[in-house]
Amino acid sequence: MESTLYPIDQRVELIDLLSETGLKRIQVGSFVSPRLVPQMADTGVVFERIRRVPDVEYTALWLNEKGFKKALSAHEVHIDPRLLFYASDTFSRHNNNCSAQVMRERQRDWLQLYNEHGYDVDSAYVLASFGCNFEGEIDIARVVEIFRWIVRTTEEMEAPTPNLIVADSMGWGNPESVKRMIGAIRDFAPHVRIGMHIHDTRGLGVANVYAALSMGVDLFETSIAGLGGCPFASHGHSRAAGNVCTEDAVFLCHELGIETGIDLEKLTHASRRAEEIIGTTLMGRVMHSGTLARYRHASQ
Amino acid sequence: MESTLYPIDQRVELIDLLSETGLKRIQVGSFVSPRLVPQMADTGVVFERIRRVPDVEYTALWLNEKGFKKALSAHEVHIDPRLLFYASDTFSRHNNNCSAQVMRERQRDWLQLYNEHGYDVDSAYVLASFGCNFEGEIDIARVVEIFRWIVRTTEEMEAPTPNLIVADSMGWGNPESVKRMIGAIRDFAPHVRIGMHIHDTRGLGVANVYAALSMGVDLFETSIAGLGGCPFASHGHSRAAGNVCTEDAVFLCHELGIETGIDLEKLTHASRRAEEIIGTTLMGRVMHSGTLARYRHASQ
Repeated sequence: MESTLYPIDQRVELIDLLSETGLKRIQVGSFVSPRLVPQMADTGVVFERIRRVPDVEYTALWLNEKGFKKALSAHEVHIDPRLLFYASDTFSRHNNNCSAQVMRERQRDWLQLYNEHGYDVDSAYVLASFGCNFEGEIDIARVVEIFRWIVRTTEEMEAPTPNLIVADSMGWGNPESVKRMIGAIRDFAPHVRIGMHIHDTRGLGVANVYAALSMGVDLFETSIAGLGGCPFASHGHSRAAGNVCTEDAVFLCHELGIETGIDLEKLTHASRRAEEIIGTTLMGRVMHSGTLARYRHASQ
Repeated sequence: MESTLYPIDQRVELIDLLSETGLKRIQVGSFVSPRLVPQMADTGVVFERIRRVPDVEYTALWLNEKGFKKALSAHEVHIDPRLLFYASDTFSRHNNNCSAQVMRERQRDWLQLYNEHGYDVDSAYVLASFGCNFEGEIDIARVVEIFRWIVRTTEEMEAPTPNLIVADSMGWGNPESVKRMIGAIRDFAPHVRIGMHIHDTRGLGVANVYAALSMGVDLFETSIAGLGGCPFASHGHSRAAGNVCTEDAVFLCHELGIETGIDLEKLTHASRRAEEIIGTTLMGRVMHSGTLARYRHASQ
C-alpha cells in the first residue's frame, strides 16, 4: 500500500529481523507487474539477499502465471500454491475483470498448473467472506458453498485438501460472525485446517482473532506493525487497512496462554524498525506500549 | 494527557457534538489542581457554555474534597459520586501517597461526605484490577476481596450498592481474564451492576469489551477517538494509553446486534472533529475507515 520505493537494504534488514523472531512463514514480497507495483519490482533481489533461518518459509505473492513462474525461478522461494475465490461478484470483477464464477473455473487451471510443476495446493482463500463494500453483507451460505466446491473439486482432482482461508478483505467480520463461519465450515469439513486472513479496518481485528482462536483456529495471516494499509493517510473517505497487527495478535495469544514460539520482544523490535523505515506512525499497539514481560520480571 | 491548552470554544464544540449522538453520560472535564493540570483549569466555564440535551448526564472528575465542592458549585454538573480503590499498593502510593489500605479507609469518609450532601454513591472503582506496571500480575482474589468489602461496607452504612467498576488502568486484562473477573464478581453479587473501565494500552481493548459483553456487562467507560493517552508520542518506553475508543466499541455492539441508542455516523463525525482539534492522528479505527452503514444502504 505504501507508494514510496524503499531501499532493498532496509527491506532485507526488516525480513532478517523477522527471521529471528520465531515466525514460521514470512511473505517477503510479490512477483507482480513492475509497472503497476514498482515498489515490488526487485523482490527477486530481496530473496537473494535475505539471511535464511532454518525452518522459516520465505514466501511470495503472485497473481498470474507470469508471476508464479518468476517466483519459481527466483532464489529459494518457498512455493505455497494458493487458490483465490470471491464471495462477491463485483469485487471479483474489480480485481480480476471477470465474474466470481469465471474466477472459480480458472482455479481449476491453477490446480493443473501447480500440479504440472509438482506442487500441491497449500491454501484456498475466499475473499470478502463477510461483506463487501460493493455488494454489502455476504450470506454465509454463499461462502460455505464455495468452500464445499473447493473440497469437492480438489478431491475429484485427487489433490490434497488445501487449508481453507476465510479472508475478511474489507473488515466486515465481527467476533460472532467469525464464530458462525468457522462452525459452518467445520460442519462439512471437520478435519480440514481453517485459517483466517483478517483486515483490521474497523478495529475488530484482535477481537476477531480471539473469536477464531476460541473455535480452535491456529492459522492466521497478520501484518507486522499493522502495515499494508494507510487508513490515516486521508480523512473523510474509507481506505483499505492492513491485516491485523502481528505483534498485537501474538500478544493476545501469549496472554491467553497459547504458545506461539514467537519472541515478542524481538517482534516489537522489528516493528519499531519498520516504523522508522516507513517514517510515519504505524497502527500496532504493543510495539508502542511495550509487552508485559519486563513488568512481570521486575515484580518477581 | 494532552499538554496543550485547547480553547474553551473547541472543547464546548466537541461536547456539543457528542451531546447529539445519543451518548447517555459525558464526562466534560475535571475539577483538579489548576497548577498541576492547567488544561482543566476552566472546566467550570465549559459547563456554563455547553448546550444541554435532555437525559444526557454531564459529569466531571474530582480527586479530593476541594474538587468535589467545586463540582457542586459549578453550573449544572451531574454529580455521580465515586469511590476509588486500588488492587496495587504501589500504584496507590504513586497516585495518592498512601497505601491501598489507607485509601480504602478514606473511602468511608467519602461515603460520609457524599451522604452529607444528599448523594448516594454511583460507582466504586478498583484500579489496576488485572495487573500493575509496578507490582505485576494482580491476583483475582485480591480484587474480589475489595469488591466484597465495598458491598459489605455500603450495606453496613445503609447506602445503596454502587456499580462495581473493574478498571484495567494499565492494560493488563485479556478476554479470558475479563470473563473470569466478571464471573467471580457475579458469584457473590449476582444483582449488582458491573461496569468496565478499559484502557487499550496493548490492543486488546475491543476484544475485552467483547468478552465483557458476552458476560452481560452493559456499562462501559470509553474515550472518543481513543483520546486520553499518547502512546505514540515517544517510542521505546511505555506510556499510558487512553480508554478503549468509543466509536470502535459502539461499532462492535451494533455489529453484534446490541442496540446502544447511539448514532455512529454522528459519533465518528465528532471524533474526526476531535482529531482536527488535537491536530495529530488519533487511535480510533472506525472514525478513519467509516462505518458499514453506507455500504449496506448502497447495496440494497
